[in-house]
Amino acid sequence: MLRRQFLVSAIVATLLPAFTGAVFAQTDPLPSWNDGAVKSSITDFVARVTTQGGPDFVPVDQRIATFDNDGTLWIEQPMYVQLAFILDRVKALAPLNPGWKTKQPFKAVLDGDMKALAASGEKGLVSLIAASHSGMTTAEFDKIVSDWLATARDHRFKRPYTELVYQPMLEVLAYLRANGFKTFIVSGGGIEFMRPWTEKVYGIPPEQVVGSSIKTRFEMKDGRPTLFRLADINFIDDKTGKPIGINEHIGRRPIAAFGNSDGDLEMLQWTTMGGPGPRLGLIVHHTDAEREYAYDRQSHFGKLDKALDAAAVNKWTVVDMKRDWKKIFPFDQEATTGSKP
Amino acid sequence: MLRRQFLVSAIVATLLPAFTGAVFAQTDPLPSWNDGAVKSSITDFVARVTTQGGPDFVPVDQRIATFDNDGTLWIEQPMYVQLAFILDRVKALAPLNPGWKTKQPFKAVLDGDMKALAASGEKGLVSLIAASHSGMTTAEFDKIVSDWLATARDHRFKRPYTELVYQPMLEVLAYLRANGFKTFIVSGGGIEFMRPWTEKVYGIPPEQVVGSSIKTRFEMKDGRPTLFRLADINFIDDKTGKPIGINEHIGRRPIAAFGNSDGDLEMLQWTTMGGPGPRLGLIVHHTDAEREYAYDRQSHFGKLDKALDAAAVNKWTVVDMKRDWKKIFPFDQEATTGSKP
Repeated sequence: MLRRQFLVSAIVATLLPAFTGAVFAQTDPLPSWNDGAVKSSITDFVARVTTQGGPDFVPVDQRIATFDNDGTLWIEQPMYVQLAFILDRVKALAPLNPGWKTKQPFKAVLDGDMKALAASGEKGLVSLIAASHSGMTTAEFDKIVSDWLATARDHRFKRPYTELVYQPMLEVLAYLRANGFKTFIVSGGGIEFMRPWTEKVYGIPPEQVVGSSIKTRFEMKDGRPTLFRLADINFIDDKTGKPIGINEHIGRRPIAAFGNSDGDLEMLQWTTMGGPGPRLGLIVHHTDAEREYAYDRQSHFGKLDKALDAAAVNKWTVVDMKRDWKKIFPFDQEATTGSKP
Repeated sequence: MLRRQFLVSAIVATLLPAFTGAVFAQTDPLPSWNDGAVKSSITDFVARVTTQGGPDFVPVDQRIATFDNDGTLWIEQPMYVQLAFILDRVKALAPLNPGWKTKQPFKAVLDGDMKALAASGEKGLVSLIAASHSGMTTAEFDKIVSDWLATARDHRFKRPYTELVYQPMLEVLAYLRANGFKTFIVSGGGIEFMRPWTEKVYGIPPEQVVGSSIKTRFEMKDGRPTLFRLADINFIDDKTGKPIGINEHIGRRPIAAFGNSDGDLEMLQWTTMGGPGPRLGLIVHHTDAEREYAYDRQSHFGKLDKALDAAAVNKWTVVDMKRDWKKIFPFDQEATTGSKP
């Protein structure tokens, strides 16, 4: 058995790099990125860790890259997509819950009163999550999310949210995978909110998605095993939770991490400051109000403050979306605003 | 990018099955298994799910197989290996903790008084886990486990525990992977106790190990990010915890599950009773006191009672180790007791 396995592995190992190498020698793996230091920091890093016999070579099984989702792979303004889901879900469930008309934070949602909603704070948010994310089986929740994504539209771009993903980052995902990386999502968003669509949209299978979760209970129901979603937070995969989630799910340290906000600070530290060898830390800085949004230190969603300061100290790559990206979304025309400065 | 990726995938997809197919046509993928219904249940299942165009074909990305560890992939008698680790660790730490000489359950461990240890129950075990598994960083714990495994020896077989793995199951792991399966461990054992060695011993990388865990805390220590192990249980990956752990880590339902005790019952239910299409549930029944151990309904470790009854009802494969396995361990000679009845 083992000898045969080695033979297969040897053939694949010989063929794959030779083939991809030949391809990438001919064409640009990151066509939506303007040439410059930012783009080079990615391609140089990949060249270093994949050069067999080089001083920075990293074996394939250790090529782990982690990506935040909201604001790093897809849009997070004017609010997190999952919050839009929560608001729609509360509205959809309101006829079954007449008491919500007079009870906060549900009243605020039904009235569209964002100020009252904000005033309800974290406690309010948790009760909205409980109302929208629990009380059904995992299979039922998967369908609720999929059905919602199929019909919900972003108000500004009039597109399904799954189209509001960043083309340059899709290219980075594919480029890393073509170079032997395993790509993971490590997001503060709900793990079960992402899994129904990440494989189709990002090429990231469910087992490579790490996120926040609520507790579930196993039960036999009409002779069939089910997992029932409880109104009880299990894990918050944000800030210090990100390295904890990475350790729990992946069990080894990434060599590259991609984020865009202070929620990604500890993941970037864990990835880049943790050990010997080459590391890539990258922050997407939203600087393009025309093609997308411009926000950082003062933003309610995706606040980028401490991590921006840390980027300078730790030599993380900071992407200036306006300067560095030829296009933002897959459906964009290449815009003149995105041309090389 | 995408077209190139498809090309690479197409070449690999074309080459790999053709090559492995040619190999397996010539040789037996499970040479340590005696021919018969048990062996056929495995090879028939794999043939069905990998036959392109067949009614039971399963796409590669959905070929998920989960394996219990203790008693399914390696030995669990006369006690769980991790318990042997705990006892050794308590002895090693005793000089630093003079109070343990008079304090249960530590006194029981130091006196070798297994009766008093058993009397300390779950509460006693939790305090032993806390003393041996927490109070250090994840990197330090990795080294402690690796160092222990390098020197600890099983008393009966006089071998490192990592050699006391079941050769027929190693063949199943390799056979499934050669047929496009992703193989996962889903064990009640500690996730961080397994990850240092599962890749080398089973070919299962850290990110495909699911297990029980304690909580960790992220902290910067001398300017370096660390995860510090706390004396606080995070998750017990046993019984109903197994489908919960599978859902949390893998995010899709396995189509094959392998276990050996009542701790695996819910994983087997979740895998085989959950949806349409072919499923394989398999239980390793320890029936060979001569070459290994014989135990089931009355055993303290690896009790197999309810799951054995459920196997008959649900048509899970039950391996009779004495009858079905030509050899138990990789170092075994093929024994006459293992010949076809």
